[in-house]
Amino acid sequence: MSAHSFDKLNLETSSSSALLHAFEPTISQIVAPDSIHTTQARSHLDTLTKPLGSLGHLEDIATQLVAIRSGDVDTPLRKAVYVFAADHGITAEGVSAYPAEVTRQMVLNFLAGGAAINVLARLHHARMTIVDVGVAGDVTGLDNLLGRKVRLGSRNMLNEAAMSWEELMQAISTGIALAEQAASDGLNVVAPGEMGIGNTTAASALTAAITGYPIEQVTGHGTGLSEQAYEHKIQVLRRVLEKHLPLTNSHLRNMGGLEIAAMTGFILGAAAHRIAIVADGFISTAAAVIATSIAPATRHYLFSGHQSEEPGHRILLAHIGLRPILQLHMRLGEGTGAVLAMPILESAMHLYREMATFQSAGVSEAAP
Amino acid sequence: MSAHSFDKLNLETSSSSALLHAFEPTISQIVAPDSIHTTQARSHLDTLTKPLGSLGHLEDIATQLVAIRSGDVDTPLRKAVYVFAADHGITAEGVSAYPAEVTRQMVLNFLAGGAAINVLARLHHARMTIVDVGVAGDVTGLDNLLGRKVRLGSRNMLNEAAMSWEELMQAISTGIALAEQAASDGLNVVAPGEMGIGNTTAASALTAAITGYPIEQVTGHGTGLSEQAYEHKIQVLRRVLEKHLPLTNSHLRNMGGLEIAAMTGFILGAAAHRIAIVADGFISTAAAVIATSIAPATRHYLFSGHQSEEPGHRILLAHIGLRPILQLHMRLGEGTGAVLAMPILESAMHLYREMATFQSAGVSEAAP
Repeated sequence: MSAHSFDKLNLETSSSSALLHAFEPTISQIVAPDSIHTTQARSHLDTLTKPLGSLGHLEDIATQLVAIRSGDVDTPLRKAVYVFAADHGITAEGVSAYPAEVTRQMVLNFLAGGAAINVLARLHHARMTIVDVGVAGDVTGLDNLLGRKVRLGSRNMLNEAAMSWEELMQAISTGIALAEQAASDGLNVVAPGEMGIGNTTAASALTAAITGYPIEQVTGHGTGLSEQAYEHKIQVLRRVLEKHLPLTNSHLRNMGGLEIAAMTGFILGAAAHRIAIVADGFISTAAAVIATSIAPATRHYLFSGHQSEEPGHRILLAHIGLRPILQLHMRLGEGTGAVLAMPILESAMHLYREMATFQSAGVSEAAP
Repeated sequence: MSAHSFDKLNLETSSSSALLHAFEPTISQIVAPDSIHTTQARSHLDTLTKPLGSLGHLEDIATQLVAIRSGDVDTPLRKAVYVFAADHGITAEGVSAYPAEVTRQMVLNFLAGGAAINVLARLHHARMTIVDVGVAGDVTGLDNLLGRKVRLGSRNMLNEAAMSWEELMQAISTGIALAEQAASDGLNVVAPGEMGIGNTTAASALTAAITGYPIEQVTGHGTGLSEQAYEHKIQVLRRVLEKHLPLTNSHLRNMGGLEIAAMTGFILGAAAHRIAIVADGFISTAAAVIATSIAPATRHYLFSGHQSEEPGHRILLAHIGLRPILQLHMRLGEGTGAVLAMPILESAMHLYREMATFQSAGVSEAAP
């Protein structure tokens, strides 16, 4: 099973063995929930005082959550968002509307509580953790920042692989370890979020490589590129893919980012611990798709919080068969779309647990 | 202005005068928010630490809320849902999957706290009020039920107008009075919800009359009709429209329901008191469209909580130019889709108020 999984990462045989050895305990723990819970959840929903199926997607969400939780509907949802921050060497090519130092500045903004994700996490009671996995600047000694820096930003993937094997493994391990800690802390719904100027470029490269779609269709305007800058981004991506696509080793290593690798590990770790995972936008869904290619059963633990405006996101969601909960034309990242969807998950669980049945409420059912 | 507005109700001249006299104080209070607040809100959003426009619809929601509240961003949202319950004489024609007594049974379920709307109102901290405006059964003496019964259900609109002029006026007045009380209580976001077996038939008739769409396109399967029962519903609606469409008096009186009339008054009253209104599904949006035809500025106070599965709902939303916040394939009513959207409204307001600016956080802006 694991050998099969790692084939999907397209790893070189030698390094593949090292990865296999390192992550086998996590990967082997990722199994689909027992289908009996799905069946029982559907039956229960049909007894509640509402027309059959009238709660729409909320019924699907409740069913999936009940299955993930092995039928436990009493433990409250304990929510968290993890923001993985890293820089990208490819920003040297001028692919982003914002200067690279914004990654570090936004980390400081997260720590001060002023970013969008801070506001949403406070409002919706999600614990927020900020992780430096590769910010290209000094952020040591800051309170409440988890220092897990692998490197001062990924390498410029136009010239070389974005990460060495060791860097890739370290980033994935970091994510897995954080998921294990989340499980120990009793968290049961997590959102992997990110901050990294340049990371839509990495996500577009990965999406083109994974899905086979042409680069124009998986590339958007990021945080707000002009038409001219967008054309330049496409040209850079074309050269990136020319360089790396023919290689048979890891796309994630060659064209990913340190935060994408960490999120991949985090998602694998969460699935291994039966934690529901709410993917955010384009970047975090790219990590979810890679995690699912490594361990296909990861898919059962995944929700899509929202449909972002990045065109590649829609393609990734279709590739993995995920239906976004919200469509609010957001394109911010940080985990914002995922945390915004958490009240919907919570609503689905509460409806499942608290609604009266036709029998208990003495309500007549529909004519047969 | 008021004479013009009442023309839109297509009232007979004599009764129009009585209505005009009764509701003029409310209608004359409904004015568009000052556009300065809209302009200022847009400017403020562009200073926040996020790519321009990256919060998507949340920015539109925040802007509209700030304008409704005349720039007040500090007063917390105080949320409420009002469930208007009434029966429909047209159910005698067999247009619903559920027997008519379910309206009364569901009122008891609301009072016991077991319906979907109870669960969502509890979870999202919306005050819930249940109002009998026309349940065809005895619900007197029940705690926490507002007894405002106009009639034991509307009349069968296949044979006569669904309401007399007096009944219509009483139902509208009831809604206005409740909105006035809501304003006195300090509520600033309200959802008009409903319960009434047969009310998708009334809403379809109103939608066909208002928008001119053919009956097949504005009629759905309600709470779960078979194909055969659906065909029958279409036939009944065809006869209803043949009878009432040529008349120049009120569509709401002829083909509405007591709860739809009460919701129309409630929406007018809320707009008059500058309360944000979150419409729910097909039925409550029909009331919103009628309220807007009476007082066009009502539109500025309206949000659409969700896109329901009833095909007429999409047509009404397009008619009035409302974009639904959620698309979760729900078709339950009761105000459920509106209350489910309230955390999104709340998120938009909190982001607006609490996010740091580029300047305050020392974050670099995008290259020009």
